[in-house]
Amino acid sequence: MAGNSFGRIFRITTYGESHGAGIGVVIDGCPSGLDIDESKINLELQRRKPGQSRLTTQRKEDEGFEILSGVFEGKSTGMPINLFIKNKDQRSKDYSHIAQSYRPSHADMTYDKKYGHRDYRGGGRSSARETAARVAAGAIAKQILESEGIHISAGVTQVGSLKLNTKIDQIDWTTIESNDVRCPDIETAKAFEALILDVRKKGDSIGGVVTCYIEGCPIGLGEPVFDKLHAELGKAMLSINAVKGFEYGSGFEGVEMMGSDHNDEWYEDNGTLKTKTNFSGGIQGGISNGMPIYFNVAFKPVATIMHDQESVNKDGEATTVQGKGRHDPCVVPRAVPIVEAMAALVLVDYLMLSKTNTLS
Amino acid sequence: MAGNSFGRIFRITTYGESHGAGIGVVIDGCPSGLDIDESKINLELQRRKPGQSRLTTQRKEDEGFEILSGVFEGKSTGMPINLFIKNKDQRSKDYSHIAQSYRPSHADMTYDKKYGHRDYRGGGRSSARETAARVAAGAIAKQILESEGIHISAGVTQVGSLKLNTKIDQIDWTTIESNDVRCPDIETAKAFEALILDVRKKGDSIGGVVTCYIEGCPIGLGEPVFDKLHAELGKAMLSINAVKGFEYGSGFEGVEMMGSDHNDEWYEDNGTLKTKTNFSGGIQGGISNGMPIYFNVAFKPVATIMHDQESVNKDGEATTVQGKGRHDPCVVPRAVPIVEAMAALVLVDYLMLSKTNTLS
Amino acid sequence: MAGNSFGRIFRITTYGESHGAGIGVVIDGCPSGLDIDESKINLELQRRKPGQSRLTTQRKEDEGFEILSGVFEGKSTGMPINLFIKNKDQRSKDYSHIAQSYRPSHADMTYDKKYGHRDYRGGGRSSARETAARVAAGAIAKQILESEGIHISAGVTQVGSLKLNTKIDQIDWTTIESNDVRCPDIETAKAFEALILDVRKKGDSIGGVVTCYIEGCPIGLGEPVFDKLHAELGKAMLSINAVKGFEYGSGFEGVEMMGSDHNDEWYEDNGTLKTKTNFSGGIQGGISNGMPIYFNVAFKPVATIMHDQESVNKDGEATTVQGKGRHDPCVVPRAVPIVEAMAALVLVDYLMLSKTNTLS
Amino acid sequence: MAGNSFGRIFRITTYGESHGAGIGVVIDGCPSGLDIDESKINLELQRRKPGQSRLTTQRKEDEGFEILSGVFEGKSTGMPINLFIKNKDQRSKDYSHIAQSYRPSHADMTYDKKYGHRDYRGGGRSSARETAARVAAGAIAKQILESEGIHISAGVTQVGSLKLNTKIDQIDWTTIESNDVRCPDIETAKAFEALILDVRKKGDSIGGVVTCYIEGCPIGLGEPVFDKLHAELGKAMLSINAVKGFEYGSGFEGVEMMGSDHNDEWYEDNGTLKTKTNFSGGIQGGISNGMPIYFNVAFKPVATIMHDQESVNKDGEATTVQGKGRHDPCVVPRAVPIVEAMAALVLVDYLMLSKTNTLS
Repeated sequence: MAGNSFGRIFRITTYGESHGAGIGVVIDGCPSGLDIDESKINLELQRRKPGQSRLTTQRKEDEGFEILSGVFEGKSTGMPINLFIKNKDQRSKDYSHIAQSYRPSHADMTYDKKYGHRDYRGGGRSSARETAARVAAGAIAKQILESEGIHISAGVTQVGSLKLNTKIDQIDWTTIESNDVRCPDIETAKAFEALILDVRKKGDSIGGVVTCYIEGCPIGLGEPVFDKLHAELGKAMLSINAVKGFEYGSGFEGVEMMGSDHNDEWYEDNGTLKTKTNFSGGIQGGISNGMPIYFNVAFKPVATIMHDQESVNKDGEATTVQGKGRHDPCVVPRAVPIVEAMAALVLVDYLMLSKTNTLS
Repeated sequence: MAGNSFGRIFRITTYGESHGAGIGVVIDGCPSGLDIDESKINLELQRRKPGQSRLTTQRKEDEGFEILSGVFEGKSTGMPINLFIKNKDQRSKDYSHIAQSYRPSHADMTYDKKYGHRDYRGGGRSSARETAARVAAGAIAKQILESEGIHISAGVTQVGSLKLNTKIDQIDWTTIESNDVRCPDIETAKAFEALILDVRKKGDSIGGVVTCYIEGCPIGLGEPVFDKLHAELGKAMLSINAVKGFEYGSGFEGVEMMGSDHNDEWYEDNGTLKTKTNFSGGIQGGISNGMPIYFNVAFKPVATIMHDQESVNKDGEATTVQGKGRHDPCVVPRAVPIVEAMAALVLVDYLMLSKTNTLS
Repeated sequence: MAGNSFGRIFRITTYGESHGAGIGVVIDGCPSGLDIDESKINLELQRRKPGQSRLTTQRKEDEGFEILSGVFEGKSTGMPINLFIKNKDQRSKDYSHIAQSYRPSHADMTYDKKYGHRDYRGGGRSSARETAARVAAGAIAKQILESEGIHISAGVTQVGSLKLNTKIDQIDWTTIESNDVRCPDIETAKAFEALILDVRKKGDSIGGVVTCYIEGCPIGLGEPVFDKLHAELGKAMLSINAVKGFEYGSGFEGVEMMGSDHNDEWYEDNGTLKTKTNFSGGIQGGISNGMPIYFNVAFKPVATIMHDQESVNKDGEATTVQGKGRHDPCVVPRAVPIVEAMAALVLVDYLMLSKTNTLS
Repeated sequence: MAGNSFGRIFRITTYGESHGAGIGVVIDGCPSGLDIDESKINLELQRRKPGQSRLTTQRKEDEGFEILSGVFEGKSTGMPINLFIKNKDQRSKDYSHIAQSYRPSHADMTYDKKYGHRDYRGGGRSSARETAARVAAGAIAKQILESEGIHISAGVTQVGSLKLNTKIDQIDWTTIESNDVRCPDIETAKAFEALILDVRKKGDSIGGVVTCYIEGCPIGLGEPVFDKLHAELGKAMLSINAVKGFEYGSGFEGVEMMGSDHNDEWYEDNGTLKTKTNFSGGIQGGISNGMPIYFNVAFKPVATIMHDQESVNKDGEATTVQGKGRHDPCVVPRAVPIVEAMAALVLVDYLMLSKTNTLS
């Protein structure tokens, strides 16, 4: 109810604040007998970590994690898995500027009014640091998906008004980690990178788009009506900090098409049903149809910038919020593993759920 | 779990198929003592009804509904309210073309593979007829919101590549019902209408965008992390048939902005905190901030067209799906009340939920 | 949340009031492809029906039901199944004595204070008539269990202070329907029957115990910690009107035993693990162990009696509640199918859920 | 779904194993602004702790706990509260006898068959050590209830066949902590104690009953039909290790009463509605009626005894399980705080939920 849990069967609950003891996640409903590869969890945490390149905030976070429960002799037991990441970079700082003032386009004001009492240090629970817990859980979800032949890729396809122009089915996702910006095209990556560095220099921030592409998803994931697969993917993505939009398949561009062009005609290819086009984005009637699933996630320019901004304090008095500290000029390079993690969590949950659709 | 329920506190479960006995909705968790105005339920059902203008399908549906439970002496009792709408336009038809063939971009194939056994008549449960049940429940939700001073408007702002150009805060939402296309601008409405009629003449279909605008929402609706208000609104919208995308506030366009332009600075206006701009779309950190909430919903061109299309049957053999029957050339005029209904369901649920955030 | 739903995967929501349009149930999550045998649903409804013998209330209820959704060509489709039972015995009566007065040990006062507004006719939603909806849903659950080799029996083993003395593993459950009181022993049945008729003559009521016995349950149903199989069975039974207690296995008598006598030692019998004794009641650590599951359910004497009783009205003024109308002198004979239905609902839900414990 | 969570609004998820890193609980939905008194949490943990008297196991557990999240400046923030208790008494032991053998009346066999892979050290997750996490969460729930004037008491009222004979409304609950056995009567306590010490000497175990008594509960807690207040209390109690039965109000004894004796007649006492008797146990129609709530919880003799027992190993081969180590001869003295904790968790959850029954 209170918003810190996600999923039905494979259900996660994250906890923790940016500058408290740490952050973590309890996974309830992880199937038993799964080999838990800690290095893969660590790898994903490294991909999300701040300070990994010139493009990201220089705040250091050592993402060492501990498994507090649910794993025995390297395998899941079916019991709750608690992954805990201690906070280490908690310099004793003066947070009075956040405690009293409402930073523009942050959650300061809404948390304050909703809860009356909040942990304002570094944004507390509203900090994007919370997403590390998702990434850790997602790394386990990915291990399940891999064993089922489902592969999730994601990359940056837009920064500001610069866009990657490659068609969705021609993108080479293997190149993502070859550049700091995580764009699946080396030339475009350079342009993205130059733009981000320029924005950083100005102490400003800029938005971007992450595109996700899922191959090997079996037919039948997704529940009809309210829990359509794309509706849950949409909610998952929109729950990530700074996300403003979600579209799958033809998305907003599909609006401009005629049905006769947009409809994906079926054909049979060596015993497998396929569609000639894939404007459906691999999902029909809310249920996966075996074709690749793909979607775009829009991230706004992050709210923390190095400029002074006008605002008000708790009492409604005018004040100035000073630009200082460390920030991400563009969040999308680090958002890539988060998008992948949330996609993995949705797919594993729906995969487990699909076992209950029929008796056999 | 099985996808037919929505909401936590104010929770609806819809049931029924396009050509079965009827469709309906059970609302569990409606607060007691609420005056249930049946005429308002009927009004919303009429707005969604097919055959209401030249722009929509000519299939007739008499949307008479019965209240099977939960209302006594005109008031809600706090017990489940069951609203049932009998199906009347069930001509005995030959559905063998759907029973055996998979229509392009419909749910035929995915339902068949997922469930093995499906009610194929008129699309069965995957038919947009199911949304009438949502609209009925939403009409009750709206009555609650009105009593709390929350007002939801929606209208068509794009058809094909034609767009309404009015800025979001300058739209006159009172004009929506003045034209068949439900566009909040008479001139643009005419252009939209002409385009839709042209598409109809071609036996084709085209997409559109519905924009929703919510005023009077108190500060504090929305739960942090996974159940952010916009994430739930996004899921609600993406669960509507034919929806391909959702964006709120600055949305996909916000990607191209700089943080210094995008940040909404706070000021105090006669004791009320307001933001100078509203790129946040009335939601910060997933929680409503008191400013108007607005979002766009992208609808694809509906899959039913009057053209013959190539496809396969259940056995994977090539077949032709014939274009015949009645269809909506553009779904957005009728989608307006559905978008409003889903928005109302989300807001009432979060309103009730917000009573549990603090003890007092 | 609002209490009208039960189950996780195989989830039911009941609706309706004693003297409204009717009562019914929506089953969401019934697996697809199941043959729905309407005669079995009807049979169970007949077993619960009032007026079936001299031992029960003479109020007539024609329990004809309609399937409003979810079944096509005699099979479940995986979509919500709505079973609706119209109310027919709704004589226009004077309910002012209930509307204004609080009957002793009924739900009149609590509903009134909790909801402010209630449907007082015949007890409204708090009437045991609601259990007909559970029995209808349970009849479908039983069909699933039968196909899996799981068989549920129940019978009356105590009325007032008269008890059946047969040991649990020596009871012949096939005799249940041979007598009106549904006791699995003909001689004891006669004594029970004589007692109930005597109580009826006095215009009074008396309590009883229903014992349930489940054979063929596979190892592994039940979730650890909070959702132990017996905890959910207990909740299911305690949710039935007039139930005051639940015990499984050795129950309250087990309290008096020593561990060395109570422990069930394991042995192997032709490849099957069995316990020499079964004080565990077929459940260990909350999970079924393959041995028969059994439990007792205590029903109080029902509150409706033919005596005048002192009470108060809504304003707290002293008043007399008159004894009149029709009533059950002892509810347990009709409670037998309700206990079976609730047990079936729990088992099917946990059976479906158990498919998600491992990946394979 | 996987059974490790409890509650709807005030929702806890426990995690951890007997001999892993530790055990703990995440509370999601704790209202914000609550003073969290750590000494009260510690006090409850001490009451549950092993080794606290001659009557309990001598295994030492230092129940120091850490608050990992959700509390800032001593107050709840409305965010998830994670309470973690490190395991310290983890002597490196030889667990091969449990790893390979199925101890009689333990969860060894059922966990093994259900999950394939289990943490067998000290019973792993099925160990009663898990209840420390419940007690910690319950201590916070109690702080909320106290601020609302609701007081929960519990005590031991039966050990073996020895019973406390005081009537429920004449028990002096303030004496509970005056004796090691936690019986609310000094003389009876001595008899209980002597019996338990005798059982301990024999290396055996014996059962008992804990009675719980709740005063100050407002009218209106409990949801109708499936989530009746006593049904949820029953489930909560039955989820505690070793519990075999639950009864409230008149319970199993009520079966033997006539309705005319059992019905609780209403009267008005200085503006408050009261019942002359309270066989209803403070709950009518599943909803609290303002009278004291009371119920009994039956605990079996715990399965760990100091005798050798026959059993089988994983391969079904006969084996002997040796009696050794430390054990509780009778679990009820330490169960008292667990019963109170679970009662508190149910009441707080229903208290929060009751805020959503009406609009105002």
